[in-house]
Amino acid sequence: MITAFVLIRARGNRVQALGEAIAELPQVAEVYSVTGPYDLVALVRLKDVEELDDVVTQGILSLEGVERTETLLAFRAYPRRLLDQGFALGQE
Amino acid sequence: MITAFVLIRARGNRVQALGEAIAELPQVAEVYSVTGPYDLVALVRLKDVEELDDVVTQGILSLEGVERTETLLAFRAYPRRLLDQGFALGQE
Amino acid sequence: MITAFVLIRARGNRVQALGEAIAELPQVAEVYSVTGPYDLVALVRLKDVEELDDVVTQGILSLEGVERTETLLAFRAYPRRLLDQGFALGQE
Amino acid sequence: MITAFVLIRARGNRVQALGEAIAELPQVAEVYSVTGPYDLVALVRLKDVEELDDVVTQGILSLEGVERTETLLAFRAYPRRLLDQGFALGQE
Amino acid sequence: MITAFVLIRARGNRVQALGEAIAELPQVAEVYSVTGPYDLVALVRLKDVEELDDVVTQGILSLEGVERTETLLAFRAYPRRLLDQGFALGQE
Amino acid sequence: MITAFVLIRARGNRVQALGEAIAELPQVAEVYSVTGPYDLVALVRLKDVEELDDVVTQGILSLEGVERTETLLAFRAYPRRLLDQGFALGQE
Amino acid sequence: MITAFVLIRARGNRVQALGEAIAELPQVAEVYSVTGPYDLVALVRLKDVEELDDVVTQGILSLEGVERTETLLAFRAYPRRLLDQGFALGQE
Amino acid sequence: MITAFVLIRARGNRVQALGEAIAELPQVAEVYSVTGPYDLVALVRLKDVEELDDVVTQGILSLEGVERTETLLAFRAYPRRLLDQGFALGQE
Amino acid sequence: MITAFVLIRARGNRVQALGEAIAELPQVAEVYSVTGPYDLVALVRLKDVEELDDVVTQGILSLEGVERTETLLAFRAYPRRLLDQGFALGQE
Amino acid sequence: MITAFVLIRARGNRVQALGEAIAELPQVAEVYSVTGPYDLVALVRLKDVEELDDVVTQGILSLEGVERTETLLAFRAYPRRLLDQGFALGQE
Repeated sequence: MITAFVLIRARGNRVQALGEAIAELPQVAEVYSVTGPYDLVALVRLKDVEELDDVVTQGILSLEGVERTETLLAFRAYPRRLLDQGFALGQE
Repeated sequence: MITAFVLIRARGNRVQALGEAIAELPQVAEVYSVTGPYDLVALVRLKDVEELDDVVTQGILSLEGVERTETLLAFRAYPRRLLDQGFALGQE
Repeated sequence: MITAFVLIRARGNRVQALGEAIAELPQVAEVYSVTGPYDLVALVRLKDVEELDDVVTQGILSLEGVERTETLLAFRAYPRRLLDQGFALGQE
Repeated sequence: MITAFVLIRARGNRVQALGEAIAELPQVAEVYSVTGPYDLVALVRLKDVEELDDVVTQGILSLEGVERTETLLAFRAYPRRLLDQGFALGQE
Repeated sequence: MITAFVLIRARGNRVQALGEAIAELPQVAEVYSVTGPYDLVALVRLKDVEELDDVVTQGILSLEGVERTETLLAFRAYPRRLLDQGFALGQE
Repeated sequence: MITAFVLIRARGNRVQALGEAIAELPQVAEVYSVTGPYDLVALVRLKDVEELDDVVTQGILSLEGVERTETLLAFRAYPRRLLDQGFALGQE
Repeated sequence: MITAFVLIRARGNRVQALGEAIAELPQVAEVYSVTGPYDLVALVRLKDVEELDDVVTQGILSLEGVERTETLLAFRAYPRRLLDQGFALGQE
Repeated sequence: MITAFVLIRARGNRVQALGEAIAELPQVAEVYSVTGPYDLVALVRLKDVEELDDVVTQGILSLEGVERTETLLAFRAYPRRLLDQGFALGQE
Repeated sequence: MITAFVLIRARGNRVQALGEAIAELPQVAEVYSVTGPYDLVALVRLKDVEELDDVVTQGILSLEGVERTETLLAFRAYPRRLLDQGFALGQE
Repeated sequence: MITAFVLIRARGNRVQALGEAIAELPQVAEVYSVTGPYDLVALVRLKDVEELDDVVTQGILSLEGVERTETLLAFRAYPRRLLDQGFALGQE
């Protein structure tokens, strides 16, 4: 599985309708209205990189009211190791 | 549960060490190296908004090599409704 | 109570009408025309984070003339401690 | 009273100390850690515009770890009129 | 007197008409076409901060062709002291 | 006389000293601390364009603590015509 | 041969059609949908710099839905030297 | 094969050394000095997305003098169809 | 003579027509299509600063398809001194 | 001959020394201090595109105090046609 975060800027009065429509995309695991310079963020799980074309180009970008998208594609996961021994952070 | 996406810009040679350290933060569900203008993205699950102080101010910002963070806090989730009936998108 | 600051960019000739309309939103405590890159700032008090959807997505973003909003959500307050003993600032 | 919102970008490991120090400034009514591109926001009440010099130039900017500030000065307040008659928004 | 500098971006073919119209605003002392990312700059003298609403919101922003304004409000003047003794600059 | 507006970004703890030093530059008519993304604005009157070199390159840029300057040079003034007949604005 | 990378921002619902059309430009060696702030990137091989006019001004910019392009023109190639002796990187 | 374009900003006096070092990375097919806001662009061919970690995080970001990188990952290629029949562009 | 560089952003399909029209402006010595974030650059020679109004406000900005201009006005020339003795650069 | 415009941002107190040094570069025809977001602009004439490496990478970027450069390379010139018949501008 490849994970990606699609940051979406939408026309003001289309945010809710877009959130609902994007939630129906099969590759979209979670989608939220968020604070900050973007209106929506979609957490996406992909079989392969090419599937981004279905989700973003064919899917999200084809929806009315989408102004800009920026896709952050994950290329390395950092799993948790110290499950129980509490947390030792390389603080300064 | 409140979800947030913490976008992190790091000093080049500290990305891996930071990815590993951030993965140990209890509120961090997933953390990745990503393409785009940020180096790392952390998917965070919070009991309440105040916990962001632990994760971001006390946690991530205290780590050596963190240059900038931007937190996108989710304030509305869009659940999937049409599980099986295939996908009807409000295309243009 | 959760506090948020909603920074609003509006079409030039809609600033006053928007200021008046936003003032009527129940969660809005104060709203002003301001100097700087934004036209209006609304100080918002929320019961919970989800209420942002009412104020921003359903409220402000649905108004004609709103071009952009950016929400700064407070996740930690810093109360005043040294009420009377004058002010000692950790100056350089 | 003149209201201003001072948006503050700080060095990562100085955010908490700065929040606490800024809270002690006499003109600062409220100060918070916030999500978004700034780290702290201070809500300031001034007798006159010149007082900004005390709060920002002499106060906040003199603190160690402050990287950037942007002051949004309010020049018109929009009071609420329709207290009880519910809310009629000039929606589109 | 409070001084402010209103930086104005205008639609290309409206710059001259706007310069002439803005010059008629009572609070505007001087207005120019300028080089740089803005098209016009107005030097404004105000009795009080609230007058910005007349000049900017009711005045400049209501004009056809104004795309963006940014107001820099002066909150401290630095008068000249060494009138005749030539100029001693704290150069490095 | 040629007019220019020099927008100055300064290191936080040098703003006041710079304001005072810049005020002593012979070509500087007025200089202020201002709200917005710049810390200081100098209103400059020049005999000719070349004098900008004295004011900016030799003067302001040589001062300790100046981070960035942007010069907006006026190339056309819009004088007021309708002195007494009140104000007719080409509103929309 | 001169190499250039043309970064293209397109209207959301025109990305695929533009990708296909740009692929037909004789100077275009490869063209892709990409993650990040641009929608498409074209790898271009030119006989001389003037050919950019055919590819960009006459070609890509004349297509419906192209919002912005940025051309990065290569002026020095760095060939690989250490083909077999493994890789020695001037790491810190 | 997955293609990516790594845009690199470098410290002025390190551009040449970096170009030479990056050319030795096994996944780097071509690397150039370019015009525009970046100093170098590397054309990268990957077996899978995870290899970006070797090229960018372990490779390029570990080099002295690299200030910023932005990776544009290709997720769809547009092959040329009309090889000989000249070029038909969907011009406006 | 005063020199200025006018950087011009144009609508995609108007670049060539604008290049040709701008070339006819009497004060324009040279005009080119260029790589980078601007589409055209005009090298302008002026009798005095006021002539910018003819070239930019009355000339370029009045042309259909001009989206943005930024004028860089030269205020000091650096003539070459070491004509024949080769080149001695204050390298680091 | 290929023309390029090299926009240069320099450390404040190095502008004059850099202007003088850059003027000595053989490919530099003219170099100026300019208004706007850059400090210096060099007008460069090149035999071929590769010469940019001498001028920018080996030349300008190696100088102490150069913070950023952006090169706008000309790829099409628009010669003046209507020498004497006055000026007919495709005004709106």
